[in-house]
Amino acid sequence: MTTVVLQRGRVQPVWAGHPWVFAQAIARVDGAPSPGDVVDVVDPEGRFLGRGYWSPKSAIPVRIATRDPSDPLDGASIGRALDRAAALRARFGLPSPETDGYRLVHSEGDALPGLVVDVLGRVATVQLLTAGMKRREQDVFAHVVRVTGARTVIEVASEKAQAREGFEATTQVVRGADPTTIRFRERGLEITLASTITQKTGFYFDQRDNRALVEGLSRGARVLDLYSFVGAFSLFAARGGAASVRAVDSSAPALATASALAHQNGFDGRISFDKADARQRMRELAAAKERFDVVVLDPPKLAPSIKDLERARSAYRRLNADASRLVEPGGILVSCSCSAAMVADDLIRAATLGARDAGRDLTLVHSGQQGHDHPTPSAFPEGRYLKSVFFRVT
Amino acid sequence: MTTVVLQRGRVQPVWAGHPWVFAQAIARVDGAPSPGDVVDVVDPEGRFLGRGYWSPKSAIPVRIATRDPSDPLDGASIGRALDRAAALRARFGLPSPETDGYRLVHSEGDALPGLVVDVLGRVATVQLLTAGMKRREQDVFAHVVRVTGARTVIEVASEKAQAREGFEATTQVVRGADPTTIRFRERGLEITLASTITQKTGFYFDQRDNRALVEGLSRGARVLDLYSFVGAFSLFAARGGAASVRAVDSSAPALATASALAHQNGFDGRISFDKADARQRMRELAAAKERFDVVVLDPPKLAPSIKDLERARSAYRRLNADASRLVEPGGILVSCSCSAAMVADDLIRAATLGARDAGRDLTLVHSGQQGHDHPTPSAFPEGRYLKSVFFRVT
Repeated sequence: MTTVVLQRGRVQPVWAGHPWVFAQAIARVDGAPSPGDVVDVVDPEGRFLGRGYWSPKSAIPVRIATRDPSDPLDGASIGRALDRAAALRARFGLPSPETDGYRLVHSEGDALPGLVVDVLGRVATVQLLTAGMKRREQDVFAHVVRVTGARTVIEVASEKAQAREGFEATTQVVRGADPTTIRFRERGLEITLASTITQKTGFYFDQRDNRALVEGLSRGARVLDLYSFVGAFSLFAARGGAASVRAVDSSAPALATASALAHQNGFDGRISFDKADARQRMRELAAAKERFDVVVLDPPKLAPSIKDLERARSAYRRLNADASRLVEPGGILVSCSCSAAMVADDLIRAATLGARDAGRDLTLVHSGQQGHDHPTPSAFPEGRYLKSVFFRVT
Repeated sequence: MTTVVLQRGRVQPVWAGHPWVFAQAIARVDGAPSPGDVVDVVDPEGRFLGRGYWSPKSAIPVRIATRDPSDPLDGASIGRALDRAAALRARFGLPSPETDGYRLVHSEGDALPGLVVDVLGRVATVQLLTAGMKRREQDVFAHVVRVTGARTVIEVASEKAQAREGFEATTQVVRGADPTTIRFRERGLEITLASTITQKTGFYFDQRDNRALVEGLSRGARVLDLYSFVGAFSLFAARGGAASVRAVDSSAPALATASALAHQNGFDGRISFDKADARQRMRELAAAKERFDVVVLDPPKLAPSIKDLERARSAYRRLNADASRLVEPGGILVSCSCSAAMVADDLIRAATLGARDAGRDLTLVHSGQQGHDHPTPSAFPEGRYLKSVFFRVT
């Protein structure tokens, strides 16, 4: 077995539970591992810290999957980790008759770094994001079928991961028959997606709890859903009894899906679909003195890494200035960020300053996050990527 | 009107929305205000920043209540602020037939600095924590009755506030008749408290959402409720179908109340009440190799101020080490802190290190906080005092 020896001074985060071993933290590699091999990580004195998978082309050459020296990280280990992942979801009520769309495996958070598995009713999608997981794909597929009973398993290829890790993959059905549609439920709402719409371009589970809260706030409200994508917030706002819902997104296909989902759930005419750049539209709505009781601002990732943070803070500040102008005094702004580099305090600060630029004040009422099916090691702040902060605007 | 002029370099936080003006931030006071007077806060160029109440004896001589120069902060202003507070609670579903115990006014978060109002069914309790609010108590009592319809209003005196602000107060009924008991509901659970148990020594609303989550996790589980106080987590764990619940607290009166509430809700024999120091008991349970599926650790405030933070971090680390040892692998640790100085990241880090000390690993599943009836200005991190973090322990 290959042993990766850490540099002095780089041991503590790994000891505390951070699953990533960066290239700069490595003093030497004893052995000649191939991509995806299991390697041991030790401190300069040779003490065992953890065991993981080798990704020589990555800036993170080792992702630790276990701290148990007796765990060989073989196919059975993957099966046990999947069982633990399913047990955690079950403890938090997933799946249920009302909700059978959820994330079963969230990579590091489930001690399966490089693996993401989503369940959408009878279909499971699998993303293999590291050489280690790609090499074990047959074990993964088999255990996913065993644990979920999925009729179909789809491998969803990631171009970024392939470039980073140096392997080939294509999006394809790897178990079962190709379904023409993918059907699942979220808190009783029926979601049917064309199977060509894979997870990356489809429906995100991570905002489930925040959508539930928006639903509860929507009775009689004028709701604006900015960067709506397939309209998930809008659908629950409509179900919550919104007086009106306006979904704004720049993607015509996303809005077409949103419209189909609205029709499927009996919300025809309850949601207006507005193909536009959200920033541009916010300014036009402000100029027209339009006001909303609930505004959801869920922009795409603006801070891909820590070096983009300053620029991202300014961008969030401007977006929140524009959005807060549109909120009726006493109304609610739901301000989201899916950038891990932007921690909750950063987002709250950027939103606060943006609102002040617009002459408005914010009161923090709720600080939401990714749902319980997106766990993360407690020593891994990089994993806490989603923030959805509910403010009252005055 | 008195004008308080800020020092150069101390304007930005106040501009951004921080409601506290510290003594060190004040360049000069133009006027001779009396305790509780309304004063204007301006920048060195004389630009209006906000208006608040004067507390000359406090380290925070001004608490800003409005940024609207047209708001005189008179009795009608207090009424409008109470209406806005009630509107915010209503938007988040409070009160409801299932829940009529909630915080109506949360001081700075409701632009009523120095005022805390809790509603417990037909009783309202009022804490007047500043000279400004104490002087306006008759307006406060009248508007509380108007907004809530409370039959009884109890003023709850705070010795600390009286010492800080220099006024006299006693806990007493100030409107309506003295009730022999106080009755209210939380999510359908019936809570009856002797009226001598005032809010400070009674039932805390701020953990409501976190109790709901614990209830959902409790089916078939062995639950340990550390620092249980009157057993609120235990009651919901029992209702959630826990196999066993053990409430540990050092206060015999608190456990007697807990036992009465268990009886009232039909949970006799479902919860065991254990009068003990939680730290001591944790070590004994660990020595006896006892294990629980859900452990709630909700210690009293360990970091009253930022200067206690280092010591508090160590204390939280030790507590979480002891608690995580008691969790069955795969079980849940709910680790709480009600110290504002201890931000969520601090608590997560302390818990992580404590668990590692105990040879355990934590996965972050949910980061909870004070409920929606405890809002806080977005520019006021001091207000985000409660963290309740849900970890899976392996």
